[in-house]
Amino acid sequence: MPRLSTRAASRSLRDPARVAASALAGGSDLESFHSWWDGRGRVDQMTVSRVALDDLAGWHTDAVTGDLRHETGRFFTVEGLDMRERGERDVHWTQPIIRQPEIGTLGILVKEIDGILHFLMQAKNEPGNVNGLQLSPTVQATRSNYGRVHGGKAVPHIEWFHRARPRQVISDVLQSELGGWCYRKSNRNMVIEIDADVEVSDGFRWLTLGQIQRLLTVPDLVSMDARTVLSCLPYTGPGMTRQYAAVSAFSAALVRSLDEGGTGLHTMDEVLHWITEARSRHDVATRGIALNDVSGWKRRHDVLAHESGAFFTVMGVAVWTGNREVSHWTQPMIEPVRPGLAAFLVQEFGGVLHVLVRAQPEPGTLTVVELGPTVQCVPGDLDALPTLARPRFLDAVQEAAQDRIRFDTVHSEEGGRFHHARTRYMVVETDGLGHRDVPPGYRWLTLSQLGRLLRHSHYVNVQARSLFAGLASLVGGNAP
Amino acid sequence: MPRLSTRAASRSLRDPARVAASALAGGSDLESFHSWWDGRGRVDQMTVSRVALDDLAGWHTDAVTGDLRHETGRFFTVEGLDMRERGERDVHWTQPIIRQPEIGTLGILVKEIDGILHFLMQAKNEPGNVNGLQLSPTVQATRSNYGRVHGGKAVPHIEWFHRARPRQVISDVLQSELGGWCYRKSNRNMVIEIDADVEVSDGFRWLTLGQIQRLLTVPDLVSMDARTVLSCLPYTGPGMTRQYAAVSAFSAALVRSLDEGGTGLHTMDEVLHWITEARSRHDVATRGIALNDVSGWKRRHDVLAHESGAFFTVMGVAVWTGNREVSHWTQPMIEPVRPGLAAFLVQEFGGVLHVLVRAQPEPGTLTVVELGPTVQCVPGDLDALPTLARPRFLDAVQEAAQDRIRFDTVHSEEGGRFHHARTRYMVVETDGLGHRDVPPGYRWLTLSQLGRLLRHSHYVNVQARSLFAGLASLVGGNAP
Repeated sequence: MPRLSTRAASRSLRDPARVAASALAGGSDLESFHSWWDGRGRVDQMTVSRVALDDLAGWHTDAVTGDLRHETGRFFTVEGLDMRERGERDVHWTQPIIRQPEIGTLGILVKEIDGILHFLMQAKNEPGNVNGLQLSPTVQATRSNYGRVHGGKAVPHIEWFHRARPRQVISDVLQSELGGWCYRKSNRNMVIEIDADVEVSDGFRWLTLGQIQRLLTVPDLVSMDARTVLSCLPYTGPGMTRQYAAVSAFSAALVRSLDEGGTGLHTMDEVLHWITEARSRHDVATRGIALNDVSGWKRRHDVLAHESGAFFTVMGVAVWTGNREVSHWTQPMIEPVRPGLAAFLVQEFGGVLHVLVRAQPEPGTLTVVELGPTVQCVPGDLDALPTLARPRFLDAVQEAAQDRIRFDTVHSEEGGRFHHARTRYMVVETDGLGHRDVPPGYRWLTLSQLGRLLRHSHYVNVQARSLFAGLASLVGGNAP
Repeated sequence: MPRLSTRAASRSLRDPARVAASALAGGSDLESFHSWWDGRGRVDQMTVSRVALDDLAGWHTDAVTGDLRHETGRFFTVEGLDMRERGERDVHWTQPIIRQPEIGTLGILVKEIDGILHFLMQAKNEPGNVNGLQLSPTVQATRSNYGRVHGGKAVPHIEWFHRARPRQVISDVLQSELGGWCYRKSNRNMVIEIDADVEVSDGFRWLTLGQIQRLLTVPDLVSMDARTVLSCLPYTGPGMTRQYAAVSAFSAALVRSLDEGGTGLHTMDEVLHWITEARSRHDVATRGIALNDVSGWKRRHDVLAHESGAFFTVMGVAVWTGNREVSHWTQPMIEPVRPGLAAFLVQEFGGVLHVLVRAQPEPGTLTVVELGPTVQCVPGDLDALPTLARPRFLDAVQEAAQDRIRFDTVHSEEGGRFHHARTRYMVVETDGLGHRDVPPGYRWLTLSQLGRLLRHSHYVNVQARSLFAGLASLVGGNAP
């Protein structure tokens, strides 16, 4: 009966045991990867130079609103946003924000090679990258770009994603972009399995999940787009304690947390209730305003910057490349002034590792609130925010003993719109926190619960997704 | 150990067997309900008269934009919306729409009486109701109204919902309002269980689910707000075939569809993939515009109407009541010109009833696409929409033989903002449709799959939720 075999196939497709097997493979074997990577770095060069906003070719500053937009009307615009929160806290600010109403596709092709899942990754240059190439998904494409608005080359491998049959889909979910800099932007995070042979050009390479996870400990190597797609893999499910051999109390607790049989402090219904409560409690209204009307920001001929010198600037770049859909362009970008920090506190309860997530409004979030890291801030900017308290748990993260830091890597945010945007991603183990005395906006979740939320859109923000991918690596490619 | 007992309590709280037991109780015993209801109808009178928009006290038409808003800035506004869809279909229109950025609370208190769940329902008058009272949730309150912007009385029982402890929560989820008339409006749908005694005034009454379900067959009696809260109850779960005695092939298939062990045509992962695909395929951009800038609509001193005479008008009412937070007010309302139709086609596959849902963009929807009924339209308005084809499956619904119509009741949409807005809700059984030859925007889902989607926000639209509550009643209060 064809129907039953389809269902059986798609069930095993999302079998977390296959993800675990790939996570345990190849992590120590990266020599040939590095020689390929170094080779790509020599071939695939991009020259990026700063250009004043007034001098960006093809981009116009609207005479009335001050908004920055491309002459075709596509790609993205830089506009203003007014964010007002009433209720238990009264907050109001305006800021520049990127608007890009299209849904992009971030996709990784997966294939079993010698019985192990391999992921087709791409060495991709972006103008905002601090170091040129980053390890990126098989495809990352907006409609503009696969619709070839800029008249460039086709995006390789995109057809696998647009023509995927249901039985090839390991994951496919819309997830939000950075809610502090982008207004209601979502991308489609897809992992598609094929068994056909694919012609792979030299910029692409099949890697095991264990290899990619190992590379997550290298600064600025695995791109934001790759990290978010990886976070949506089926890591969790019943039976995970049989898949991973735990080598420490920490990894045993982590594995039990990936296991859906593991007992959490809260049921899934309680977690969903808490999220609804948080979304209802925050009375947030955002509205688009003219970029000229953001207050505290000053447009100069070169950049748009905050008067305090904090937060970020909107700046321009000119780009030359031999290895891209088009070989020269200019564009505005957001450049943060200082690096960010995103950290999960994790703690064991009843032998099961829990992650302390925070439900906090961000201006660009579609659903008012998504779950973010325990701490998400720009430590160097805190002085410029006198009205807001120092983030809870920042001290616990910054003062953690070295042996309690389980993950600690600086990664870059997406290099297509953000220039040198770096965030320190940390996972810090604690043991002193009672599960009941965390504030109402925080909750201890198991990894299995986070994994179940990640099957749906708009629950987990992109920083928390990066951290989730990092945490999952601690029993795979980065197991001690 | 208090932690474990909390979890056990909240698990059994959502036990669908308890919902089933209540659905099977009391459905034939409505005599005392009707005498209470008739009594309420005599006591709780509301006088509603039409008032020209120009003469609405407290409401202003903005001199520049034409937007209608209350002088306090609260409640809601009537503004314009520009909806543009590109891609496989090119659609563009403008229309008036209601904006109400607050999240309201729709809540039903539940209590075990003699071992059976009872629901505290309210006989509530709304100015838009065709017949005065409708059976409504225990509370329905916007922030404006429980924050007492209009200086009225407190909303009875609201504190149970705002102070609910996790172990009291049977369901709590944000769900969308009518996406054709409201812009990105969500309400919190809550069902809270208490065991304390509650003082209940004469406008309230404890009913079994079976009684409420029986009343779903009475036209214009169970309010839209009640229907949406009821749709979020935990009807589905493993073991449902033991709970309900099936008396026909249809009810046997329906019960198997509520059972999470029942085998559907598609896995849940395939369903989620299909939803992501639909949301990504539709390239929809909506933006707020001035009400004066909607084209094809004419503002007269009395109403705002479409030039074709179709769709709806924005009109005004004056209201006098002795039984409300405030006893007199005026307000604008949306009044549809003709009644709507919302219908599910249902069909058995492998002994399990499936519902044909449609993924279709609506202008006010936060996530571009939600799942709606198989057919959702205003049949009388179709002539005014020459560019759009006649809805698929409309003929199958309108020409169905009487013995294939499983549910058929006219209900009202929410009477606080919609005046005499009536929709015919139908469930029609088919058997001639192959499961593979439905168009890409349609999918056969089991009731258990719909139930699992209803635990989350923004998957199922309000018309489909009403139909889901109606379908679930066919094994409970409305079992043959």
